[in-house]
Amino acid sequence: MGERLVVIGGDAGGMAAASQAKRRKPELEVVGLGKGSWTSYSACGIPYLVGGVVDELDDLVARTPQEFRDKQRIDVRMGHEATAIDLDARRVEVRDHGHDRTLQLGFDHLMIGTGARPTRPPLPGIDLDFVKGVQTLDDAKVLLDHARDTDCRDVVVVGGGYIGLEMAEAFIERGARVTLVEGGPQVMRTLDADMAAPIHDALVGLGIGLRLGTSAQGFEPGVVHTAEGDVPADLVVLGLGVVPNAELAADAGLTLSTRGSIRVNRRQQTSAEGVWAAGDCCDSKHLVSQRRVHVALGTVANKQARVAGINLGGGYATFPGVVGTAVTKVCSFEVARTGLSETEARADGFEYEVAKIESTTRAGYFPGTKPITVKMLAERGTGRLLGAQIVGEEGAAKRIDVVAVALTAGLTASEAIDLDLSYAPPFSPLWDPVVIAAREAASAVEDELRSG
Amino acid sequence: MGERLVVIGGDAGGMAAASQAKRRKPELEVVGLGKGSWTSYSACGIPYLVGGVVDELDDLVARTPQEFRDKQRIDVRMGHEATAIDLDARRVEVRDHGHDRTLQLGFDHLMIGTGARPTRPPLPGIDLDFVKGVQTLDDAKVLLDHARDTDCRDVVVVGGGYIGLEMAEAFIERGARVTLVEGGPQVMRTLDADMAAPIHDALVGLGIGLRLGTSAQGFEPGVVHTAEGDVPADLVVLGLGVVPNAELAADAGLTLSTRGSIRVNRRQQTSAEGVWAAGDCCDSKHLVSQRRVHVALGTVANKQARVAGINLGGGYATFPGVVGTAVTKVCSFEVARTGLSETEARADGFEYEVAKIESTTRAGYFPGTKPITVKMLAERGTGRLLGAQIVGEEGAAKRIDVVAVALTAGLTASEAIDLDLSYAPPFSPLWDPVVIAAREAASAVEDELRSG
Repeated sequence: MGERLVVIGGDAGGMAAASQAKRRKPELEVVGLGKGSWTSYSACGIPYLVGGVVDELDDLVARTPQEFRDKQRIDVRMGHEATAIDLDARRVEVRDHGHDRTLQLGFDHLMIGTGARPTRPPLPGIDLDFVKGVQTLDDAKVLLDHARDTDCRDVVVVGGGYIGLEMAEAFIERGARVTLVEGGPQVMRTLDADMAAPIHDALVGLGIGLRLGTSAQGFEPGVVHTAEGDVPADLVVLGLGVVPNAELAADAGLTLSTRGSIRVNRRQQTSAEGVWAAGDCCDSKHLVSQRRVHVALGTVANKQARVAGINLGGGYATFPGVVGTAVTKVCSFEVARTGLSETEARADGFEYEVAKIESTTRAGYFPGTKPITVKMLAERGTGRLLGAQIVGEEGAAKRIDVVAVALTAGLTASEAIDLDLSYAPPFSPLWDPVVIAAREAASAVEDELRSG
Repeated sequence: MGERLVVIGGDAGGMAAASQAKRRKPELEVVGLGKGSWTSYSACGIPYLVGGVVDELDDLVARTPQEFRDKQRIDVRMGHEATAIDLDARRVEVRDHGHDRTLQLGFDHLMIGTGARPTRPPLPGIDLDFVKGVQTLDDAKVLLDHARDTDCRDVVVVGGGYIGLEMAEAFIERGARVTLVEGGPQVMRTLDADMAAPIHDALVGLGIGLRLGTSAQGFEPGVVHTAEGDVPADLVVLGLGVVPNAELAADAGLTLSTRGSIRVNRRQQTSAEGVWAAGDCCDSKHLVSQRRVHVALGTVANKQARVAGINLGGGYATFPGVVGTAVTKVCSFEVARTGLSETEARADGFEYEVAKIESTTRAGYFPGTKPITVKMLAERGTGRLLGAQIVGEEGAAKRIDVVAVALTAGLTASEAIDLDLSYAPPFSPLWDPVVIAAREAASAVEDELRSG
């Protein structure tokens, strides 16, 4: 009998690795264990489904279990939950929920793609039925039913991160009254406060009841308790971030990393030989801070999974790491960031200069030109770029990718000035906003050197 | 008396350098000589003015002569044409057209920003009044008058480069009958033939009479002669590229470079001490091919001018070079390129692998998602990226900047796969089209290595 790869987790991390490994090593027997009923899907699309921008739940399904079986000869078993990993015996204990039985499944190689789950702080009533996370397609179904239900008038979103904001807007589009409760002084804490400020105005402009500095303290049917009083709620949506599903790995004795994620090396191997991980359950290296970080993003998951899959298939591939890029849309605002914010840079001991510039997305005289603000950080002395944040309208956000590549390459602000970026009046001002920011950042670094 | 900087040329190259130098060294006396009546303006905006997308000629003026005088204390003299440079005597001969006299103007430093002019092949009738280039704001005025003149029914555009295509579309928007005459087998010769093909369809779809492989042979009032017969023409627009205005520099004994451009070093200094050049009149280094090239683009001109200005102002700055990035819009098509095309790569002796992929600008399920085709070249063996071309619709073209930065940093296709680009459904599929292309290119390089 040939070698067997067991994959725990039916979403991006696990299944993409399985596909890659099977392509490289067709003789490999691959068994995929999916706890729920869905394999590969776009969790990032859920807010757009709930808001009615995307029509069908099926639109979010990238590949069904049957497709994995038919096209890639992967033995996908849904409703099968891995409950324990025995590294010495090289086997996984599996609960087959459909047949209400427990199996032992031996493996030669193990791929862990258990993902993450929405953070649920231990508050009274947090497990009540009307308090929902945004994660699986089952969540999506429930949220969609609420969104379409005209009796669901009052929605409280707890947490002002990307998912929280996207869900708040989604329910506004469905005609609900939405209150956003955020414990901190700003939404989008991965942005600096000055860059988040215009988003507050946009949210209020949308009609969202914005309660900053207000933590949820507990839930009862129809109401969310906060220190500033009760808020009526037919539905509560949790947008407090995610925690890695790493308990299984931890119980098996695998080394953990930041925020309880599974520690992987550059090949996506865990601390155990022949055991690999990818996606929201494991950690990454941050290429600017050089720290281990936990980033739960579909793009990162898929890239890590590709690397794990190549290695599982007998090849050699490494995942260099992330630079912390993220993007979202809030009403007509596009918001993006990469690298380190001021808060993060300080926490990592960097001294830096800041540039913040206002420009336009097209030539100033070109119809449809929109405002864009770019904030950029460069290290004191070396001038090395540390990060950037962009807030603007149509055409603004994707410019962050230029900075993401520059960070990966370790460019200085001064080097970024002369980047040969594309220019024509419908696409950019003569000096691209990112380059203007780099110019200001380079000047600030130079001025500081001269005065020092 | 202090030092005097004389600037020849009133557009981007010259005046931007003058401003930069004056800021750094306020005691510098700066005299700017402008042949025409306009200083800093956007030549790239002319097609949009002619097409009616931009309303006013004044919209294209970035800074007037008076603003240079008032805000930067630069002695700008319009209608003053430099007619000779005496490097030994350190003086410029100037024809003052306003007063019909000739002056001698001494300099300590000389900045040459004479730009380029539309190519006018020596064809019979090429100097007739109805044959127009697209360069100065005076050209723009004349073209605009024709565009608004309902008697100007037949417009022939000679040359299918960026300007040719933009002007053809502009006159279509004004209701003219437009014929585009291109001597080669395709428009946009900086793209490979396969990438230019869909643009041909778009042009025909716009109603433009497209005549490929057809060279203009001569002009007579009302008609353009070609080998394939006469084409009626109330107006002929030349879109055959530009030639550097370097005769003055050549006559003074300065070293020339490719296509007759002025050779500059990394600080934008010409072959003569204290004599500098920037913009369309001088050359650049191509960072991929390592060749000297002539690139006539406003972005490059401004960057070179900044570098020249810093050096003129007593600082130290270098211009590393270009990677050959360009972008335009033809109807709903966005077209961009950077690095080397297949033709260019072959000419430079590179062997390479090609990836060509179809994807979408947003998540496939997201409303408004548009098609995008990315072609990418990677060097055989090393896998180093050599160039990319993008054709697509809204949201496609600006992605070329990611490749432009990657080329600058010398990344391989394999390294480009793991770039941490921004992802959210309204902005990109999970795998950015550029990354998909990099993945295919890296596979092709790997397959070739394995089979070799």
